[in-house]
Amino acid sequence: MNPSIPTPAHHHHLVVTLVCPDQPGIVHAVSGAIVEARGNITESQQFSSADTGRFFIRLQVESPADRDELQAALDPIIERYAMTSVIDVVGRPLRTLVLASTAGHCVNDLLFRHRGGQLAVEVPLVLSNHGTLRDLVGFYGVPFESLPITDAASKAAFEARVVEAVEEHDIELVVLARYMQILSPELCAYLTGRAINIHHSFLPGFKGANPYKQAHARGVKLIGATAHFVTSDLDEGPIIEQNVVRVDHSRNPSELVAIGQDEESRTLTQAVKWFAENRVLLDGARTIIFK
Amino acid sequence: MNPSIPTPAHHHHLVVTLVCPDQPGIVHAVSGAIVEARGNITESQQFSSADTGRFFIRLQVESPADRDELQAALDPIIERYAMTSVIDVVGRPLRTLVLASTAGHCVNDLLFRHRGGQLAVEVPLVLSNHGTLRDLVGFYGVPFESLPITDAASKAAFEARVVEAVEEHDIELVVLARYMQILSPELCAYLTGRAINIHHSFLPGFKGANPYKQAHARGVKLIGATAHFVTSDLDEGPIIEQNVVRVDHSRNPSELVAIGQDEESRTLTQAVKWFAENRVLLDGARTIIFK
Amino acid sequence: MNPSIPTPAHHHHLVVTLVCPDQPGIVHAVSGAIVEARGNITESQQFSSADTGRFFIRLQVESPADRDELQAALDPIIERYAMTSVIDVVGRPLRTLVLASTAGHCVNDLLFRHRGGQLAVEVPLVLSNHGTLRDLVGFYGVPFESLPITDAASKAAFEARVVEAVEEHDIELVVLARYMQILSPELCAYLTGRAINIHHSFLPGFKGANPYKQAHARGVKLIGATAHFVTSDLDEGPIIEQNVVRVDHSRNPSELVAIGQDEESRTLTQAVKWFAENRVLLDGARTIIFK
Amino acid sequence: MNPSIPTPAHHHHLVVTLVCPDQPGIVHAVSGAIVEARGNITESQQFSSADTGRFFIRLQVESPADRDELQAALDPIIERYAMTSVIDVVGRPLRTLVLASTAGHCVNDLLFRHRGGQLAVEVPLVLSNHGTLRDLVGFYGVPFESLPITDAASKAAFEARVVEAVEEHDIELVVLARYMQILSPELCAYLTGRAINIHHSFLPGFKGANPYKQAHARGVKLIGATAHFVTSDLDEGPIIEQNVVRVDHSRNPSELVAIGQDEESRTLTQAVKWFAENRVLLDGARTIIFK
Repeated sequence: MNPSIPTPAHHHHLVVTLVCPDQPGIVHAVSGAIVEARGNITESQQFSSADTGRFFIRLQVESPADRDELQAALDPIIERYAMTSVIDVVGRPLRTLVLASTAGHCVNDLLFRHRGGQLAVEVPLVLSNHGTLRDLVGFYGVPFESLPITDAASKAAFEARVVEAVEEHDIELVVLARYMQILSPELCAYLTGRAINIHHSFLPGFKGANPYKQAHARGVKLIGATAHFVTSDLDEGPIIEQNVVRVDHSRNPSELVAIGQDEESRTLTQAVKWFAENRVLLDGARTIIFK
Repeated sequence: MNPSIPTPAHHHHLVVTLVCPDQPGIVHAVSGAIVEARGNITESQQFSSADTGRFFIRLQVESPADRDELQAALDPIIERYAMTSVIDVVGRPLRTLVLASTAGHCVNDLLFRHRGGQLAVEVPLVLSNHGTLRDLVGFYGVPFESLPITDAASKAAFEARVVEAVEEHDIELVVLARYMQILSPELCAYLTGRAINIHHSFLPGFKGANPYKQAHARGVKLIGATAHFVTSDLDEGPIIEQNVVRVDHSRNPSELVAIGQDEESRTLTQAVKWFAENRVLLDGARTIIFK
Repeated sequence: MNPSIPTPAHHHHLVVTLVCPDQPGIVHAVSGAIVEARGNITESQQFSSADTGRFFIRLQVESPADRDELQAALDPIIERYAMTSVIDVVGRPLRTLVLASTAGHCVNDLLFRHRGGQLAVEVPLVLSNHGTLRDLVGFYGVPFESLPITDAASKAAFEARVVEAVEEHDIELVVLARYMQILSPELCAYLTGRAINIHHSFLPGFKGANPYKQAHARGVKLIGATAHFVTSDLDEGPIIEQNVVRVDHSRNPSELVAIGQDEESRTLTQAVKWFAENRVLLDGARTIIFK
Repeated sequence: MNPSIPTPAHHHHLVVTLVCPDQPGIVHAVSGAIVEARGNITESQQFSSADTGRFFIRLQVESPADRDELQAALDPIIERYAMTSVIDVVGRPLRTLVLASTAGHCVNDLLFRHRGGQLAVEVPLVLSNHGTLRDLVGFYGVPFESLPITDAASKAAFEARVVEAVEEHDIELVVLARYMQILSPELCAYLTGRAINIHHSFLPGFKGANPYKQAHARGVKLIGATAHFVTSDLDEGPIIEQNVVRVDHSRNPSELVAIGQDEESRTLTQAVKWFAENRVLLDGARTIIFK
């Protein structure tokens, strides 16, 4: 059944993602376990990666069985095929920590959609190295902390607070919503696979300072944004989503920045939405997106 | 396995589409039959329609079993669930009849991509009510016939030739590539579900003659094209694909026509490609597209 | 000079729009008056309409002369060619009244960009027929009033308050930011050329109630939004801007609504921005947009 | 008047582009010369570059005066302001040499649109280092030559033939339509400002061999194409046009290539069209495009 059909009373709506080495018979085994749990598959997407030989499947299941019963039914399959698995309740809000600096466009877009019920997250904290966004964040009723970063020691203190907040709130996702500090390699490693960053993008790419100025100088006709996982190489992690918009010669660098910010907001929010819905799976250096 | 991994020697690459009333256990039953035929699922998409209560699945399977063996393995499932089914060889060229008038843009795009191996069709005939495209079609080595339509009798003769050609060549798809005559209700009915038309599109829609002129007069900012199935209401059939492109006030109606033609070509070719790959399924008045 | 070069101290940055019947020599006459006012043209766009025979020009001028001196220099030209003219200071905030109902997406987008300095408007009032948006509007420090509409009398009272607010605040633009009441013909007439509405758009268009449901039923692949001037035929006024976004069969009607709202927000904000910058001119039933 | 109004009999339709250091009074001086030649400006675009301090204008003029008379009227202005100028007849076909290798998509798109009258070029020769495209080019009635490149000497011979063909046919534009050889620095220098190349583009950019494979490995979501001028640094010349298209994880590298080719064709054809219409002007390392 489709999600737009109301789930029968006392039924559970569950999401399952499974990843394992590809081989024949996986779908049959998985669907058998779901039948056993009296589940009905309402959404299903799968992919076999020619690059890594891995098999990926994401299912939404409606069932009188709850999460733990479905887990129990799937456990033998998970073991037999050496699967990495997630079994969760559809729509459970993801515990999300937002890091920011002074720019409000990404934070506002995330919180506005969160409040509108379009984004399955809960945000126990927005943490910033500036106080600029205090009022904006407060308006949405979200706790806000600022810790200035002025030198190596205060940067270390900020990152220690990030780790502490992650553990205190059992954070599942860290969103770098135009947080303008470079993460230390230790923090990158700590957050691998659970932190999303947003980056401006240009065709062709420009290295170094002030890329909008470079893009203007070269006369690019498209500017955009890339949302990607944080890895130790900050801007080189697996790509989750990208968007572009057309510009022309009449735009000065500061107009390009404003146009680019719109793309950043919508691209980051989209990436967070998919991640929160368990639609983003890692296949080596790239992502499988089950939209 | 992914299609980019070479199919093992002596293996068959098959596509299966199945449609039936939705109920639990279908995927398990289907995947069981595929396991029985020693098949490996290389691509799989499914959808449950909240609108019609129907379940749709498209699979690509690699197997030492050939088409008939897979059919035999699936037959009990097809019967049990009252399924509509297609089981075919991946990449088998679809027997396609093209109808045209004088405009060459859609015909050229179809035949160029066909020749380039990007479109799994074979075209035994292009039939036109004008001779204009004879050389273009001939260049691609495709047979061409023209039969003028000047009155009701010659129109009936043209349509009789369409039916004859469909039967002579065992045609699976009829493409109206800017064929500018309105099909008779009888021919529409005869071709239901196996004829694709291309139509210009505007936001908002304009009824009546010369829609590009109307669109210009209203100052539309986007023009586009819609590829859809032919039904008895010629331009109201289920939509397969749509595209738009941005225009501005400086475009006169004839420029809008030229811009619109590009969208028509690429939209029609895309729809034909998906249909030829068994990616287009009907769900009442709308299509399920398994891209 | 380009706007990104700082205007010299004591210089004025002015915008001029002129519309008149097309004939040779207009540009020469206008540029002569600007030379006379020691102005430098920093931006210039013109268009001659084949539809109406009218000539349109928009100029940005930097000059030691102020607005009144430039007006004086242009007055003989304006008279000679029977021009409709606007001469204003670049960036002067447009006095804008926002009408709303319960949906906050368009209002939030407008006010967020207004606060961020991206939109040259001032908003002395948001007027709604519901109280839903009071907190949102208040957060941005904008006055908010709600007046319920429950019958003809309360609707007339609401519209009387609109007219009163227009006159009290010398309003230059009324934005219908998902205000869900149909305007009376009298109010439409009163606001002609200075009220912008936002409308969902589909290919093809759907008439009647619940268009998202109709679009879903027909399986449209693109949904969008159209910002247009209010005329007596509410949704048929001259189009200012349009956008679309791709959807597929898996979206239920309520998801289509959410996707459509994003397009509505960005399309309406874009139209308001261009209007506030004197970039939108009327050519009969269509707009000339000097982006 | 608009181009869609027929030019009066015995009238000439001329295009003028002028580039010079920016200063007040230029538009007035130019429009005065056009009034003197009894011309009517039917299209006008201008731009002042904050980067280089240069002023750019493109005009279309309808006049009883012919090209030489308009030139005579403008000559004093051109001299006074030290302008670079082009004065030409609107729609005069640009003498264009096409270089190709084995891939036919760009050549076919150019020649199909040329034949359809959408591209104001004449093509006296397609020159290739392979014979693959002989039939395709011949179908369009365009002369074709192939000269194999197997070593330094044969490459020098090919390039000598390019120079010879440029001079023999008084070539105004050389189009590298997927010509897969790197041009020598001498030939790049010789062709500066009059050769357009097409390049695949990715967000982010990928250096080195097989970029589609790299893009696949990183999981890019957008692939595209960039048309740019040839400079001594082959792929770093001023950008004329760019396009992108969305892809997902299911595409293998060879599918990405096919998708990318469509973007290459339409991007290159668009760039050639604008160049042929004198809509592409150089402002240092970037282009001004007067669409």
